[in-house]
Amino acid sequence: MSNTPFELTTIGRVESSLKDLAAAPKQGREGAPDAWLVFEREMVKGLEGLGPGDQVIVLTWLDRAQRDVLRVHPRDDLARPEQGVFSTRSADRPNPIGLHPVEILAIEGNRVRVDQLEALDGTPILDVKPLLRQDQASS
Amino acid sequence: MSNTPFELTTIGRVESSLKDLAAAPKQGREGAPDAWLVFEREMVKGLEGLGPGDQVIVLTWLDRAQRDVLRVHPRDDLARPEQGVFSTRSADRPNPIGLHPVEILAIEGNRVRVDQLEALDGTPILDVKPLLRQDQASS
Repeated sequence: MSNTPFELTTIGRVESSLKDLAAAPKQGREGAPDAWLVFEREMVKGLEGLGPGDQVIVLTWLDRAQRDVLRVHPRDDLARPEQGVFSTRSADRPNPIGLHPVEILAIEGNRVRVDQLEALDGTPILDVKPLLRQDQASS
Repeated sequence: MSNTPFELTTIGRVESSLKDLAAAPKQGREGAPDAWLVFEREMVKGLEGLGPGDQVIVLTWLDRAQRDVLRVHPRDDLARPEQGVFSTRSADRPNPIGLHPVEILAIEGNRVRVDQLEALDGTPILDVKPLLRQDQASS
């Protein structure tokens, strides 16, 4: 098996009051603030069809993560035994892609306001997808 | 804003009876077959803590997608008007990352059996994350 590299494109950046990794909540539903997604101008065409009230998944590139880590203490809690990163939502992993389910609050040109986003200010945005019923697989 | 490229690593590949893009279902819950995720040997440490019955999200790189497309007919249905790709789950988009909610059926070394995966045979795997209640945002 080859290990071909693929190159990602930054389609925008997060604009948020969250500046500090240590202070950021681990998940959006744990008290994260509303934030702006600021898209590159040439990407605005791709936003057509989205509007306030839509539930979407924002994909980000967690550019402050460590990529050579395969085992972590869940939620950075040293009292919990180490686990493989793929059984956790740690940002540290070979491909640090963040998944953020949010609701769109407003759209103003290339700026999209969303609720409860735990990504830090300046985080690159990779994609936005509508949330499907299939993403909500029951246990 | 700079358009810094980021490089992805292939952590494994999908092994599936689905070989043909035209015949593949658009979503796993639309009749996709069970499939194997075959991980690179050095990634196996990262799987620790996962087991049968776990609900996870598999992230793939949809390597047959077109990356210069910003508007599509939803579900390739020409009767439906074009929309921005970010309001659809089209594979064609600037960063063609597939999100696949699946259940783990079995783990055998570096091979993980999952249910209902619509990714084609050979598709590169980027990440596996446990499904959180937060991903199941209510509408």
